[in-house]
Amino acid sequence: MYVSLKPTVNDPEGLAIANALGSLGFGTVQGVRSGKYFQVRLAAEDAKAAAEQVDQMCSRLLANPVIETYEFELERAR
Amino acid sequence: MYVSLKPTVNDPEGLAIANALGSLGFGTVQGVRSGKYFQVRLAAEDAKAAAEQVDQMCSRLLANPVIETYEFELERAR
Repeated sequence: MYVSLKPTVNDPEGLAIANALGSLGFGTVQGVRSGKYFQVRLAAEDAKAAAEQVDQMCSRLLANPVIETYEFELERAR
Repeated sequence: MYVSLKPTVNDPEGLAIANALGSLGFGTVQGVRSGKYFQVRLAAEDAKAAAEQVDQMCSRLLANPVIETYEFELERAR
């Protein structure tokens, strides 16, 4: 799951990182956006059920719908 | 770029989220690991040069090598 700020929302952390990278000599950086990243291991009947659960987890807890967007990928547990 | 805690390192945030998900009724959650997620837009001659820059950014600034690991994917800017 990737939760990041909407493009229209200021990202002070991303800005601070971009400046820090610049002062470390990474002159080719054009922009940085920061966000949160979660790996959730869960049991589900199938991919569809897993996707529904993950979507609910994001919209009810992990992402603030006012300022954040989320994406997720499903992976069969190893 | 994905920066997450090494598997051997305690993840209090992940634990708190797992508990919160449990109390919201997501009973099938077996574990949660949390981390940071960065999207960096940069200019580079080719993919190899871009990968070298990104690797340096992670090891010099974005990831703490003692407790964190990092992965990244390259994408041609749209």
